[in-house]
Amino acid sequence: MTISIIGVGLIGGSLALSLKAKNPSLKVFGVDKNENNLKKALKLGIIDEALSLEEAMKSSKVLILSVPVDVIQAITPEILDMTEDQVIIDMGSTKESILNAVKNHPKRGRLVAAHPMAGTEYSGPEAAFSGLFTGKVMVYVEATKSDEDAFEIADQITEQLEMKSTFMNAKEHDIHTAYVSHISHITSMALALTVLGKEKSQGRIFELAGSGFESTVRLAKSSPDMWTPIFKQNRENVLEVLKEQIAQLQQWQSVLENEDYETLHKLIKKSNKIKRIIK
Amino acid sequence: MTISIIGVGLIGGSLALSLKAKNPSLKVFGVDKNENNLKKALKLGIIDEALSLEEAMKSSKVLILSVPVDVIQAITPEILDMTEDQVIIDMGSTKESILNAVKNHPKRGRLVAAHPMAGTEYSGPEAAFSGLFTGKVMVYVEATKSDEDAFEIADQITEQLEMKSTFMNAKEHDIHTAYVSHISHITSMALALTVLGKEKSQGRIFELAGSGFESTVRLAKSSPDMWTPIFKQNRENVLEVLKEQIAQLQQWQSVLENEDYETLHKLIKKSNKIKRIIK
Repeated sequence: MTISIIGVGLIGGSLALSLKAKNPSLKVFGVDKNENNLKKALKLGIIDEALSLEEAMKSSKVLILSVPVDVIQAITPEILDMTEDQVIIDMGSTKESILNAVKNHPKRGRLVAAHPMAGTEYSGPEAAFSGLFTGKVMVYVEATKSDEDAFEIADQITEQLEMKSTFMNAKEHDIHTAYVSHISHITSMALALTVLGKEKSQGRIFELAGSGFESTVRLAKSSPDMWTPIFKQNRENVLEVLKEQIAQLQQWQSVLENEDYETLHKLIKKSNKIKRIIK
Repeated sequence: MTISIIGVGLIGGSLALSLKAKNPSLKVFGVDKNENNLKKALKLGIIDEALSLEEAMKSSKVLILSVPVDVIQAITPEILDMTEDQVIIDMGSTKESILNAVKNHPKRGRLVAAHPMAGTEYSGPEAAFSGLFTGKVMVYVEATKSDEDAFEIADQITEQLEMKSTFMNAKEHDIHTAYVSHISHITSMALALTVLGKEKSQGRIFELAGSGFESTVRLAKSSPDMWTPIFKQNRENVLEVLKEQIAQLQQWQSVLENEDYETLHKLIKKSNKIKRIIK
């Protein structure tokens, strides 16, 4: 089996490295509009050869789409136009827009929509590493619309990556990721801007920054090219959770303004229930 | 030199364990109104003996105040009343209220106000570990108001903990910690509440929670008994930064509502400047 990675960044690169670690003879081709990334990916042993998309279609059984979600949405219909029996696996962080764009495509069955719930705040081939996916969850979205054999091949890859798997429809997926991933990025980025703004007037503010601060702002290092299209495609769900987060913070503000420390204590205690989720 | 830890939790306990790791013969006494914590601290080798505050005052050269900041504020004047030549080191996360409460105390010079910029989201003696402070920053607040010999002893402890040190006045300290520590806790706690609220209507939302989510909400595991008094004592500064954070999120909301993705891209790119601070 030969695999092509469309987009040799953190996700595509880590997938290639993880599969190669298990199958040293596996050939992986890379497609990327960024020549520099292709060179790095070759040098880092992520890919064995750089190809054009057309060449990759001809030479591969499996094509992994790991480019920003606006690009996935734009190229998936064109890729399906060229598809014969290849398996196309979309790794995007949003699903409704992407799947809407191909819902009536005659080759829809060759597409497996999957979202690996794994990542870091870094991007590009140099951020890729074998093991990124180990133990994490692969979400299959609208799996019943994929051909049986296409799904089986995607699922073999998920197994080789040592991932767990779960199933959802696109709507459910996009709401859930808004709540447990996308909003975390916005609160981090907004917090970074708030504190960077204060630094201008206050000077050496970051001297005191510790691990708690680092933990809450590290996602603010994430790539704007990757995240702008995610927020765009998941705009409605992201707006919903963003409004809830603002209302939540306004409640904290009012509790502090009213010096209602009994309610403040209760709010903190209630938030502690997150221990049930994160150990 | 004998040391007493007033409050045998994460901070006091880690300090005892770190000093004992360097000086195996060091005797550490523990004072805590929670009998259970004293038992745990004895069992974990954090303290050698449990004493009353009065006994600890008589038996120790150095007393470390590592209880919640409302308790520090309440007991510091009483402790200074009993002080002869002992050194009292306050480890609280807020400083203005505490130092105001003793500013005219005749024994003010025996107090060294210090804030170790180190911690985790866990609390209690079982959370304590040797090495918590290594490489972190100890902030000395209004150090000129401490007696020379008292400061020297506190600074020897800071050196033994292998910490860096810096100096600030109380006002500056409280503003800075509001921006780089206290607001991180509020955004985390509020985010936990937002997402826990959604789970009620949506069910298996946390199945998709990954390391990014965990990173932004882990501070929501922090103790309400410790954090309510911090927010209370630093209320004005916390309210200032909380309002800025809300305004920042409202800007993101309006950018998304207006589908202004050029500005959204710029905001993310600007937030990336946090890379300068956290590597």
